[in-house]
Amino acid sequence: MTNETPTAQIGVTGLATMGRNLARNIARHGYVTAVHNRSDAKTKALVEEFGHEGTFVPGYSAEEFVASLTSPRTIIIMVKAGAPTDAVIDELAPLLSEGDILVDGGNAHFADTRRREAALRERGIHFAGVGVSGGEEGALLGPSIMPGGSEHAYAKLGPILADIAVDVDGTPCSTHVGPDGAGHFVKMVHNGIEYADMQLIAEAYDLLRHGLGRTPAQLAEVFESWNSGDLESFLIEITARVLRQDDPTTPGRPLVDVIVDEAEQKGTGRWTVQTALDLGTPVSGIAEAVFARALSGSSAQRKAAQGVLPGPAEVPADAEAGGARVGEPGGEEGAGGFVDAADAESFIDDVRAALYASKVVAYAQGFDMIRAGSTEYGWGIDPGAMATIWRGGCIIRARFLDRIREAYEKQPDLPSLLVDPYFADAVARGQEAWRRVVVQSVTAGIPAPGFSSSLAYYDGLRRERSSAALVQGQRDLFGAHTYRRVDRPGSFHVEWGGDLSESQTA
Amino acid sequence: MTNETPTAQIGVTGLATMGRNLARNIARHGYVTAVHNRSDAKTKALVEEFGHEGTFVPGYSAEEFVASLTSPRTIIIMVKAGAPTDAVIDELAPLLSEGDILVDGGNAHFADTRRREAALRERGIHFAGVGVSGGEEGALLGPSIMPGGSEHAYAKLGPILADIAVDVDGTPCSTHVGPDGAGHFVKMVHNGIEYADMQLIAEAYDLLRHGLGRTPAQLAEVFESWNSGDLESFLIEITARVLRQDDPTTPGRPLVDVIVDEAEQKGTGRWTVQTALDLGTPVSGIAEAVFARALSGSSAQRKAAQGVLPGPAEVPADAEAGGARVGEPGGEEGAGGFVDAADAESFIDDVRAALYASKVVAYAQGFDMIRAGSTEYGWGIDPGAMATIWRGGCIIRARFLDRIREAYEKQPDLPSLLVDPYFADAVARGQEAWRRVVVQSVTAGIPAPGFSSSLAYYDGLRRERSSAALVQGQRDLFGAHTYRRVDRPGSFHVEWGGDLSESQTA
Repeated sequence: MTNETPTAQIGVTGLATMGRNLARNIARHGYVTAVHNRSDAKTKALVEEFGHEGTFVPGYSAEEFVASLTSPRTIIIMVKAGAPTDAVIDELAPLLSEGDILVDGGNAHFADTRRREAALRERGIHFAGVGVSGGEEGALLGPSIMPGGSEHAYAKLGPILADIAVDVDGTPCSTHVGPDGAGHFVKMVHNGIEYADMQLIAEAYDLLRHGLGRTPAQLAEVFESWNSGDLESFLIEITARVLRQDDPTTPGRPLVDVIVDEAEQKGTGRWTVQTALDLGTPVSGIAEAVFARALSGSSAQRKAAQGVLPGPAEVPADAEAGGARVGEPGGEEGAGGFVDAADAESFIDDVRAALYASKVVAYAQGFDMIRAGSTEYGWGIDPGAMATIWRGGCIIRARFLDRIREAYEKQPDLPSLLVDPYFADAVARGQEAWRRVVVQSVTAGIPAPGFSSSLAYYDGLRRERSSAALVQGQRDLFGAHTYRRVDRPGSFHVEWGGDLSESQTA
Repeated sequence: MTNETPTAQIGVTGLATMGRNLARNIARHGYVTAVHNRSDAKTKALVEEFGHEGTFVPGYSAEEFVASLTSPRTIIIMVKAGAPTDAVIDELAPLLSEGDILVDGGNAHFADTRRREAALRERGIHFAGVGVSGGEEGALLGPSIMPGGSEHAYAKLGPILADIAVDVDGTPCSTHVGPDGAGHFVKMVHNGIEYADMQLIAEAYDLLRHGLGRTPAQLAEVFESWNSGDLESFLIEITARVLRQDDPTTPGRPLVDVIVDEAEQKGTGRWTVQTALDLGTPVSGIAEAVFARALSGSSAQRKAAQGVLPGPAEVPADAEAGGARVGEPGGEEGAGGFVDAADAESFIDDVRAALYASKVVAYAQGFDMIRAGSTEYGWGIDPGAMATIWRGGCIIRARFLDRIREAYEKQPDLPSLLVDPYFADAVARGQEAWRRVVVQSVTAGIPAPGFSSSLAYYDGLRRERSSAALVQGQRDLFGAHTYRRVDRPGSFHVEWGGDLSESQTA
């Protein structure tokens, strides 16, 4: 076999659902595609089932797989992040030649990608960490792709990725993000924003349900109507679909009421917050979303708090969110909510405005983080281009991203998305509604940590003076950490334990 | 020199302020104390200046220092965390014998301590990571000490640490926390709680100042009065002192108004949140505090937002916190605040209640994290004992900690501090005030991310159903992540793209 002339233009190793679908997507676009998997069964099944879709070259050993590729060999690894990825790299690298390109299309931590890139660079191999978003369906029909890696790697890889990525308004959702870990970094931030977006939608749903006392199916209509406005997005669309869905085993019972209310997570949201902490970028909206999932899963604590910790007294018992009937299908519906029926439409509109404003904050924090990461690692990421490739294929795809693209087009060094004239105006117009919604959530005892944290960020950002001056004073008193003065340069310290005089320390 | 009979019972290497003060504290308690520093000048200065306080044995080389110690040799390293600590360990370890005890009294990350402990254990050396809190003054006069490490190390070290630690009600603020990294872990969580506590106090100050339009000196009196109640603590006490302090160069001008309002941080708050994310413990209050500091320091973004992002319209212009006169000393005072003068006393009381309730949440989150870490690493930490040793010497020392000690005494496996009858009752009594204060902050545009995040946590904890069920539904739709059902075991998936039927996947 290895004596045959290599014909494959690109290879995919790791043929679980994501890898298989990506290989099919590539082959469907006319590329001769080498395919390989640790166990041969998956390789055979792919060729048998989908061989008619394009030209696949099955490789039943790493050697055969590598030998089937034309030079520079380009191999996309689609295996689990972590040790499995390292194992595949260790197996393939010795078989490759200088200038060959190894691509990690999995969900690697960008720090691992940086480590692998540096190690393989030593051996003349180009390692490209590529973020792929869109799930199984996206991998097959057109994902959003965030390729990192060298210019050399991108020259070969870029056109293929642009072909298989989804297209929005004639522009493929794939662009060179930057060197080494840049692609996986941006994919991570994408996922962090996704956590925030989902949490904000869940808060909106929670407030509407308990505020209006409507059924999930009725609320599906609200989300559907939102999906034709500023909020138009994949996540709003699927929220309507989930809310409309009945329990397949009990018609008339909303599915959302039979799902255990403990949200799981796979790690990228956590990584985003951990990385933002290292970079010093406040991503409070993403952090609240990650912690809201963690709290929902803290079943021992939640159980212990039942009936022990009271909710607000002024909310009528049957509209109170902690009431015993919530969760029993249809339980609270008909009992009305904490919002007067006459105010229902304006409440819905307020929640919509609060959701939009909070969402702008979440994206502003995410884009701040991209800029901070780009500076820290010298990646030269163009934030507007990231908004462009997120417009389709990925989970956070939304009309909204066109506005972000425009904002960075107008001002590439925009200090915050919130000060772009379009977004500043949008949030300014919505801020009163935003405040009213947070007030209602606090008064009714419906937790809205995403809404309230975003609003606190907004107020913290816009104020001329923050209370941090007091914190600096405290730090100087207990730890002699010194402070700076508004009226002259230097570092200063007060003799707190002595005569209270001030000395300049630097 | 090295031929002399060793006499020193304990040694300290690294004689910057913290190390010097700790050595003096030990010597003052009658221990023959070997002292050593990379440069001899500091060693000489210590002996010359403070030699009369006890018996110091100066070592002018590592060899001489080690040789002066009786067996098992016990050496406390007081150098900067990170590489400097590793360098000292590398220098000393070859000079030590099996059973000797190396102590790191610096602010190491607990993961580094675990790594060092494992490496030194191989060589028969006991490595004890010891958290020391209380700053320079505490080191000299009595810190709170959180010793980790082996039983063997603690048998030698424990009595000395108990002697030099501060005493509260006859109990020393030092106890064996657990093996390897346990001490530094608990010290880290202590610092995370400290961040949250300081942020909450800063929010209370901010709300009082802009709500009441009083001067910092007038507010110092409020904090002083609070310091004789439930809130009695070192941090409340020093807040009053900072607020009373005038700018030493401009009498009549409050110091807090001339301090640059960008809070700095040294990393332990960040570590706490990063570690909590790994453990899956929601520490939203600590995270908001760390991010509030980061936001305060985002000067480019804050500057860009000035005058661009509006505050709430319904607040009178001269009481509006973003107003141009805030920050100019005495500017807003006399103009009144957003609270009617007649309601001032009840507003102060509401803020006090909100601060107390939020503080309970911050501590509940911190103690949850201690339990999670103890489980993860098999440390067997007694949470009540941690509350006991934090009652004195450290930054978060407070009357309040006695209540926490009691709570764990009554129920060692308490699932959350919030469900202890005392705290549940305290928070229940304060919750209406807490809600009113958050409403006022949101309405007036004074950011209170700590107050609002804590309240959202409280509401999230106590509710029977959370909105996370919707999140699980979304995840199943876009990623086939499956969900659990409330009515039967297993994992389930809906054919969202097909006939909407449900299948059991596990």
